[in-house]
Amino acid sequence: MKPLRAIAYARKHHPRFIEELKQFVRFPSVSNQPRHARDLHRCAVWLAGHLRRIGMEQVQIIPTGHHPIVYAASRESSGRPTILIYGHYDVQPAEPFSEWRTDPFGPAVKDNNLYGRGASDDKGQLFTHVKAIESYLEAEGKLPVNIKCIFEGDEEAGSSRGLAAFCRRNRAAMGVDSVVMSDSAMHGYGRPALGYSLRGNVRFELEVLGPKRDLHSGNFGGAVHNPIQALCEILASLHDSEGRVAISGFYDRVRECSAEEREYMKKTGLKDVGILRDAGVRSEWGEPGYSAYERITIRPALTLNGIRGGYQGSGVKTVIPSRASAKISIRIVPDQDGAEIDRLLRRHIARVVPATVSVELRMLAAANPTQINRNHPALRAAEFAYEKGFSARPVFLRSGGTVAAAGIFQKTLGVPTVLMGFALPDDRLHAPNEKFHLPNFFQGIETSIWYLAAAAKLRQGRRAIESQTTHRQGERA
Amino acid sequence: MKPLRAIAYARKHHPRFIEELKQFVRFPSVSNQPRHARDLHRCAVWLAGHLRRIGMEQVQIIPTGHHPIVYAASRESSGRPTILIYGHYDVQPAEPFSEWRTDPFGPAVKDNNLYGRGASDDKGQLFTHVKAIESYLEAEGKLPVNIKCIFEGDEEAGSSRGLAAFCRRNRAAMGVDSVVMSDSAMHGYGRPALGYSLRGNVRFELEVLGPKRDLHSGNFGGAVHNPIQALCEILASLHDSEGRVAISGFYDRVRECSAEEREYMKKTGLKDVGILRDAGVRSEWGEPGYSAYERITIRPALTLNGIRGGYQGSGVKTVIPSRASAKISIRIVPDQDGAEIDRLLRRHIARVVPATVSVELRMLAAANPTQINRNHPALRAAEFAYEKGFSARPVFLRSGGTVAAAGIFQKTLGVPTVLMGFALPDDRLHAPNEKFHLPNFFQGIETSIWYLAAAAKLRQGRRAIESQTTHRQGERA
Repeated sequence: MKPLRAIAYARKHHPRFIEELKQFVRFPSVSNQPRHARDLHRCAVWLAGHLRRIGMEQVQIIPTGHHPIVYAASRESSGRPTILIYGHYDVQPAEPFSEWRTDPFGPAVKDNNLYGRGASDDKGQLFTHVKAIESYLEAEGKLPVNIKCIFEGDEEAGSSRGLAAFCRRNRAAMGVDSVVMSDSAMHGYGRPALGYSLRGNVRFELEVLGPKRDLHSGNFGGAVHNPIQALCEILASLHDSEGRVAISGFYDRVRECSAEEREYMKKTGLKDVGILRDAGVRSEWGEPGYSAYERITIRPALTLNGIRGGYQGSGVKTVIPSRASAKISIRIVPDQDGAEIDRLLRRHIARVVPATVSVELRMLAAANPTQINRNHPALRAAEFAYEKGFSARPVFLRSGGTVAAAGIFQKTLGVPTVLMGFALPDDRLHAPNEKFHLPNFFQGIETSIWYLAAAAKLRQGRRAIESQTTHRQGERA
Repeated sequence: MKPLRAIAYARKHHPRFIEELKQFVRFPSVSNQPRHARDLHRCAVWLAGHLRRIGMEQVQIIPTGHHPIVYAASRESSGRPTILIYGHYDVQPAEPFSEWRTDPFGPAVKDNNLYGRGASDDKGQLFTHVKAIESYLEAEGKLPVNIKCIFEGDEEAGSSRGLAAFCRRNRAAMGVDSVVMSDSAMHGYGRPALGYSLRGNVRFELEVLGPKRDLHSGNFGGAVHNPIQALCEILASLHDSEGRVAISGFYDRVRECSAEEREYMKKTGLKDVGILRDAGVRSEWGEPGYSAYERITIRPALTLNGIRGGYQGSGVKTVIPSRASAKISIRIVPDQDGAEIDRLLRRHIARVVPATVSVELRMLAAANPTQINRNHPALRAAEFAYEKGFSARPVFLRSGGTVAAAGIFQKTLGVPTVLMGFALPDDRLHAPNEKFHLPNFFQGIETSIWYLAAAAKLRQGRRAIESQTTHRQGERA
């Protein structure tokens, strides 16, 4: 059955949908800044209320050890497949505030874009599904599948901490056939992409400790190893001069892509020139032997997300600081494993750290990579939905980002996750002036509507689905 | 004439002197933080008023391009030598505040120490001379020499910016025979030291620019050269693995010390074990072939005073930042020159900077090194004064620190500067919990009184003095 009335309903209510999304973006739900804990809870309450209003049932705000999960389910109808829609209502910090042209939490529409922190990642994308459900229920009277919604508040804090426990507890009750989430990017405007692979992410803080107190650089400069310098030396040792990660054993478990897949990626994937243009850099960098697109998808990467030490203010303070630290994140690919990467990094640092300082390495969070068979029926349903929603056939895409939740669903529910992204490459996720392109919001809603319609037939191939699921953590390919 | 009445007066008024010094320390006169500009002016007004009250004349607050100079002169008596007393009323920033056990600008006395930012550097040391002048004037009725005071507010901002112009303008009017300043450390309690050599200091800010905006490390990690990483690579390249500065040509102009002087330094100078203990580090580091004491005095040093880039807050933000920067200071020794060091550093960075990022190197300030002949009569007068004030013969000391003013006096007034320090090695200059040891305050006042008495005979050897002055900037030894 074609959901044409739902489509018509959605088209009619664009202006209200935008206003509602603006309300959603207005909450500064920054999950990794403790001062915003209350804002996360207020945001969860708002979202739960909204789900109730559009006709979802069993709406609950579920406490976790950290920020709550918003859960909802449609009225159960037996014999139908059950789709879990996942999203996250928390956002990245907005810092540096000075680089925003609009208030990050005062959403503004300009040139067909909605600007604000979380506009795209992930409030806007999450909201496409909420509006699809509303359109279906209002216009068609009932949903073609059973729907469960899990909208969490811990994604940007790195670990989806409460999610794994919640899924384990409710696995049987939920009876999920497959998961869909929209928390990734398309290839460009009008060029949809279906993610079938995500990198994992292992996050560390490395601190170098030197003198017991800050020292005057005149009185001690030249005779004391400076923690900033030692930190730089250690960090510089993590790559070789060509851009390879120089941690011994780092690449040992990286599953090599087949020549066919690399060929497909080359044909359908992001072009290097586009990646560099989006990044705003003049020249390429990275592991030799791979294109920029391959470097950010099929290859692991070590990036430094922050560094600090000594005097940070204006002017000069001639000090040798007592400590310096850096934040490191390592994007890993199948079949690398977070725990093993932790061991390898510790061994590397122990080998290079000079005797003149001491170091502390803290692992902050770890999410493993995931990968789904490209022929999975849930992916085929999503492909159909994109063709309807965007009048364009999606390419199958590997993503360089990480969604810890996908790994958790695979592990705890035993089902694959369809990564149906609606963001654009220049949406500035995690950066100042994040935006969501409103045409993508509208076409995303229609794509979600078509996906729900197509997913009604999903269970027919359930056994086949499960046997094709690829999630080979820790296994050598 | 022995200044015994002045000494007796000083001893009688210790408690009041402490209270006055506390008033002085209370001003947050942080010269390199623009928000404190008004506090510097208030501090200058307080100091000028104090100088007037103790009987100094021609007291003026002299505007400069930056923070004002407090100037004062004693009633002129012809035929006597003129001593210029120099000090600075500005202080280093107090950050990080959290590491102070007392309010940095709420001075507190504990265990015979006065704690507070500037207690030792340089308000306390400057004040020894002010209280010596007061004691002389009150108890003896007149001073044995003509005195000019220059107390500036720009020393910690790196350049003594207004000082050079002021000295050039007033050179003839001041007719100074020699300069004395107390802005350096003794060897230990009861072990006075007379500085005859200072390192210069050339300060830079290095910024690495990468992508035009912060990027999501998932979407771009592995394909974009991270500015933090490039900065670390550049900074790590500034030293070789043994601790030498690896900038080509860096050591070419370093004047080698004679074997005799190194022997004298070894006998009289700081012991390495003490330097490391004061620094609170377990193991030595630095240029091979030199002791720790030599590394911080006769050898140049490059230190990193601060670094920053990316996300600095709590938790994680998986970003590739658009920029990262570091503050670098290079302590130089005779006959190195600030302008040449700037050229060499630029050449080095241009050679090592990868094509994937761009860099900006800004020189913030430069002060050249100075050195005085150890037989200069002004040093001998100071030696006598220390023997009286501390009942101990001072050693002649090279200092690793920098006093831009000493270079300026040499260049503009053509006279040497006696470095008569009263700080202790553990006074935590520039660090949290800075203190001034009160017995040193009291004995410093007496030393200054004896110095003024001895300096009365200074002019007799003036011609000899000038011929012995050593200040060989840019000249090869």
